[in-house]
Amino acid sequence: MSGDAAARQVDAVAAAAGAVAPAVARTTAAQRQALLDAIAAALQGAAGDLVALAIRETHLPEARLRVELDRTAFQLRAFGRAVRGGRHLHAVIEHADDRYPLGAPAPDLRALSAPVGPIAVFAAGNFPFAFSVAGGDTASALAAGCPVIVKAHPGHPALSRAVAALVSRAVLDVGAEPATFALIEGQEAGVRLLRHPAIRAAAFTGSTVGGRALFDIAAARPDPIPFYGELGSINPVFVTAEALAADAASVADGFTDSYTTGSGQLCTKPGVIFVPSGTDFVERVAAGVDAVAAAPMLDERIRAGYDAGADLFAVPGVEAVRVGGSRPDGVEPSLYRTDMSVFLTHGEALTQERFGPSALVVEYDDVEDLPRAARAIEGSLTATVRAAGPADRGLTELVEELRARSGRLVYNGWPTGVTVSAAMMHGGPWPSSTASAHTSVGLSAMDRFLRPVAYQNFPPELLPPELRDGADVPQEVDAWRAP
Amino acid sequence: MSGDAAARQVDAVAAAAGAVAPAVARTTAAQRQALLDAIAAALQGAAGDLVALAIRETHLPEARLRVELDRTAFQLRAFGRAVRGGRHLHAVIEHADDRYPLGAPAPDLRALSAPVGPIAVFAAGNFPFAFSVAGGDTASALAAGCPVIVKAHPGHPALSRAVAALVSRAVLDVGAEPATFALIEGQEAGVRLLRHPAIRAAAFTGSTVGGRALFDIAAARPDPIPFYGELGSINPVFVTAEALAADAASVADGFTDSYTTGSGQLCTKPGVIFVPSGTDFVERVAAGVDAVAAAPMLDERIRAGYDAGADLFAVPGVEAVRVGGSRPDGVEPSLYRTDMSVFLTHGEALTQERFGPSALVVEYDDVEDLPRAARAIEGSLTATVRAAGPADRGLTELVEELRARSGRLVYNGWPTGVTVSAAMMHGGPWPSSTASAHTSVGLSAMDRFLRPVAYQNFPPELLPPELRDGADVPQEVDAWRAP
Repeated sequence: MSGDAAARQVDAVAAAAGAVAPAVARTTAAQRQALLDAIAAALQGAAGDLVALAIRETHLPEARLRVELDRTAFQLRAFGRAVRGGRHLHAVIEHADDRYPLGAPAPDLRALSAPVGPIAVFAAGNFPFAFSVAGGDTASALAAGCPVIVKAHPGHPALSRAVAALVSRAVLDVGAEPATFALIEGQEAGVRLLRHPAIRAAAFTGSTVGGRALFDIAAARPDPIPFYGELGSINPVFVTAEALAADAASVADGFTDSYTTGSGQLCTKPGVIFVPSGTDFVERVAAGVDAVAAAPMLDERIRAGYDAGADLFAVPGVEAVRVGGSRPDGVEPSLYRTDMSVFLTHGEALTQERFGPSALVVEYDDVEDLPRAARAIEGSLTATVRAAGPADRGLTELVEELRARSGRLVYNGWPTGVTVSAAMMHGGPWPSSTASAHTSVGLSAMDRFLRPVAYQNFPPELLPPELRDGADVPQEVDAWRAP
Repeated sequence: MSGDAAARQVDAVAAAAGAVAPAVARTTAAQRQALLDAIAAALQGAAGDLVALAIRETHLPEARLRVELDRTAFQLRAFGRAVRGGRHLHAVIEHADDRYPLGAPAPDLRALSAPVGPIAVFAAGNFPFAFSVAGGDTASALAAGCPVIVKAHPGHPALSRAVAALVSRAVLDVGAEPATFALIEGQEAGVRLLRHPAIRAAAFTGSTVGGRALFDIAAARPDPIPFYGELGSINPVFVTAEALAADAASVADGFTDSYTTGSGQLCTKPGVIFVPSGTDFVERVAAGVDAVAAAPMLDERIRAGYDAGADLFAVPGVEAVRVGGSRPDGVEPSLYRTDMSVFLTHGEALTQERFGPSALVVEYDDVEDLPRAARAIEGSLTATVRAAGPADRGLTELVEELRARSGRLVYNGWPTGVTVSAAMMHGGPWPSSTASAHTSVGLSAMDRFLRPVAYQNFPPELLPPELRDGADVPQEVDAWRAP
């Protein structure tokens, strides 16, 4: 397609999405659930073909891709159920109040969250199902009642088209507006989409550099729109002396598995771990790494980036324990080691995200250095502590420090593995996300595509049904009024 | 103060706010309420002096300023009560779930909203109490557990300093960290503050031009921060034929009062009203306007802006019914009239906000033109309908259209007058605000300064008390789980 033709196509799908946005906003919860369920069923019905395509384009292993496809279907259905539940509406009712103390009585005031309009979704490369064409951003936007235009990730074009075809078919099958969903391809097309007046918000999962460029474009519009980007994250892990003394083997094995799984191509991959000095922790991890088979990365550009990332650790005082790199059959994990004094000098450089199976072990002598080490790390999606128990020395102070710079705190688990549920928070301070108050995984992901609207003194006939007294959705009624 | 000294002062207060942010975040709800109550009491205790200062600097009438001061004290206390209630924490608890369908069981996951850190508040000129030094932005940020640095509005410097002194005294009196609050002055100082690494979010009330400039600075930071700006708004009013037939006098009188009160210097001033053609509505409003005494505006710059704003209506087909302008004793209201065909051609130009007592009456022949007229108007804080009843012709379609482009819909009231309560929404699509999902008035204003943090598999001892089972705050417990 020529550049002009591609631009015309972007303009056409964006305008179409804008035109149907009011109708999509009017769809009932049951209609939205029907669409999400139909997409889920279509994905699972075509699982064999889709997984085969995904293997060819992403080189990820079949077992992982099958689980990811099921997770994606689960996620679609979860948003459908959530919409039926009505929690996302955040319905608040306050009846008129004559006792309001400032002269005039308080009016009857009712608020609910309404869809913002067409959403641009920039698909990710590392989760070809869960964060791509029919992934969490698309599911949450459709659930919220917004049309979606996905910009395909160039890493899996055939899979993107196949999934888009299934989604479009599902849209027709359930009788939704055809322009509820569309797919576009190409970087220029994505930028044009982001600038289109019909687009009301954007969601993105990818690199800090790419996300920052798109964030700047969204912010520079004549009418700036929210850009929900999930960017780079180092996901630090802190191990207490008590935890290591209790079970060094499972900490070492768990860490090795967490940072090498999926060839380290996960946004929640732990990139740095702090352990007490004077133990054999590094040797244990190194032995585990030696048993990890070389595996291909998503594509050549990412493989080259992984190789180049070794430069991050070319810092005096940092030891390369294993220099993983490209082999004919894929890449091998890398492992580095340093001590706390080197880390406190070079922390920010040493905690830039290196996409791939690479991690740094920092050995500390004094647990009281850990909060300071935490402060040397930029905002992160997650932070993990490994402890023998809540009374481990220094733990309380450390957790408070980590809370200030991450979105999800994990206790005695690993950051990889992100549950789709109501309390999930997959976002964090910059640069882990562009909007630290929002999550891209879990039911609250819908909030990105909703905004509250208040109705003052409206008669019931003109109110949205969910705001009428006694409607069958969660309502907060007169929960706060002047005493 | 020299430029260098001012810059050093900004850096010092911002760094101090950053340093105490963890301690401020740790304050209990009772401690925050004590501070907010102390500020409220201090304002009311000094009401005589403060109102006298405000009259001198803003030329607003005494009665209005006294009510505004009381409203500001009410607002501070309201946030204190709200924090005690714990609703703002949005606590969500999900217990571990073995039935989670994707292989691994779902972990125990709990989320609550935590303070983001130091907030820059850019005070407004038109509400020297309610949207200034101790106004809604400051109150909601302190309630959320964030240090606040206010950039004073240049229109009332002495009042700003007097209120700041009271706030700082209250901070000391209740034993809070002294750096919990600070005041700075000057445009350059404000920009430097907005760029300071310690600042985590900003709130602003003012013009679209000024707000856009600051928004761009916030977005261009190495680590962009949210900029919650409440900018310009036209606040359209739509009157059905049935409503006008039922009581033309009260609609005309109410409109006149709403657009001229406070010399039209309100963000919710209705700047355009649509009425059926062939009535004496314009004449009624004109008669009302003639009875409105000339009144001074906030300052000379704003008066000059009001005078210059007459140019907005230099459009063929627009009649100047009353050309209000500067008199020795203040400005008089302006009133313009046009018809729907002219409006549909020039709608965007005719609905740029003109700060001051100016309004446009658009006469329509066909109620079916109203949704199209609504689409010609940019995003607005409010939209008002005046009807005889919910069955008035065309009303349902109109309300749906208005919902897509405003934050608060008013039925048979007027947009001026903004209740401080849980369901209030004072924000709307660009340019009425920079973040249409957020409100700057009402209890949800706190949400701007909070972000969710999830705790995975944490022992109770390490959880925030509010996330422990059975804590005395609203908790959503296992409200959503896989079936």
